[in-house]
Amino acid sequence: MQDLSQQLDFILELDKLKAIYRKALIKTDNNRYENSAEHSWHISLTAHVLAPYAEASVDISRVCLMLLIHDIVEIDAGDTFAFDHHAILGQQSDKETAAAKRIFGLLPEPHKSKFIDLWHEFEDAATADAQFAKAMDRILPLIQNMQNDGGSWAQNQVLKHQVIQRNKYLETSAPKLWTYVLGQIDIATEKGWLRVV
Amino acid sequence: MQDLSQQLDFILELDKLKAIYRKALIKTDNNRYENSAEHSWHISLTAHVLAPYAEASVDISRVCLMLLIHDIVEIDAGDTFAFDHHAILGQQSDKETAAAKRIFGLLPEPHKSKFIDLWHEFEDAATADAQFAKAMDRILPLIQNMQNDGGSWAQNQVLKHQVIQRNKYLETSAPKLWTYVLGQIDIATEKGWLRVV
Repeated sequence: MQDLSQQLDFILELDKLKAIYRKALIKTDNNRYENSAEHSWHISLTAHVLAPYAEASVDISRVCLMLLIHDIVEIDAGDTFAFDHHAILGQQSDKETAAAKRIFGLLPEPHKSKFIDLWHEFEDAATADAQFAKAMDRILPLIQNMQNDGGSWAQNQVLKHQVIQRNKYLETSAPKLWTYVLGQIDIATEKGWLRVV
Repeated sequence: MQDLSQQLDFILELDKLKAIYRKALIKTDNNRYENSAEHSWHISLTAHVLAPYAEASVDISRVCLMLLIHDIVEIDAGDTFAFDHHAILGQQSDKETAAAKRIFGLLPEPHKSKFIDLWHEFEDAATADAQFAKAMDRILPLIQNMQNDGGSWAQNQVLKHQVIQRNKYLETSAPKLWTYVLGQIDIATEKGWLRVV
């Protein structure tokens, strides 16, 4: 029962991701902050629904699992806002690598190596699966903010060019969605939800 | 872009599941109530981690997707406590069937039919995939309650035989986990977290 004990430790550890709050707002729940666990659920399903737009052949089950685990490192490293300064985001990378080792390391093999590898694949964004997963992680806040008077963009004075840059994965991984996103960014800018300078 | 408009409507609809609160408590976040979106994320990963215990051959990616969508009907039907009276749970079934039709019906094909069929498969619990998915949905609250002085059991005066009955899917779908669960239920009863009468 050694394996089961390790697996249960990992499953209980996951509860902590429900206490990691992002800058995103949940309009349907009195605009409270979104936590990283429910966000992970939402993008996993978003990936399934938007899979037909993937330009390259992607394994949607792998993409889904990648998205389910991609934020678990925040249990140790915390969440950083996507539009924070580069210096902050750089330090974050080291913390997250150590967190992946510790948290996925709670598991016995083969899950330990599988999850660590999948997490690094997501971070490196060099494969079609990882690029589509990244694209999903970026498009969802846009969809949410567009329905919420700019949501976290408006609240944090985010710039138009930052959102374009952040959604660039769509340009090659899902071109039809990229066209849609550029149109939405223009609307958000006209409405004053995104700043130009 | 007709399809995309429908897909985005569905993706936005999902935000509402983050406002559906269960009786389960999140010990790691000041014992607040758990919502059904973060719960769905947690059991999907639990299924991946505990897949080696499945007695029959299961398609873990299907099980995972089943668990990601299984509670979406609560957006219309609300959450019921697992140990509510049978009369309440009976009415719930009709509400959830109507909810599945409306919410998954927001999607274009093939996702509309795929999700409706998968949701019914989970509810009917007649396939190996659905039985394992159900077992995961039941074992997770037990794992959480055992780490939290009985959690939602203690708070709602739940009976030992109710928890045994609720976890019965494990007996055939994951016998090794069933043995573990029976032991945990005995401990919970000794500690007074579960009542005998």
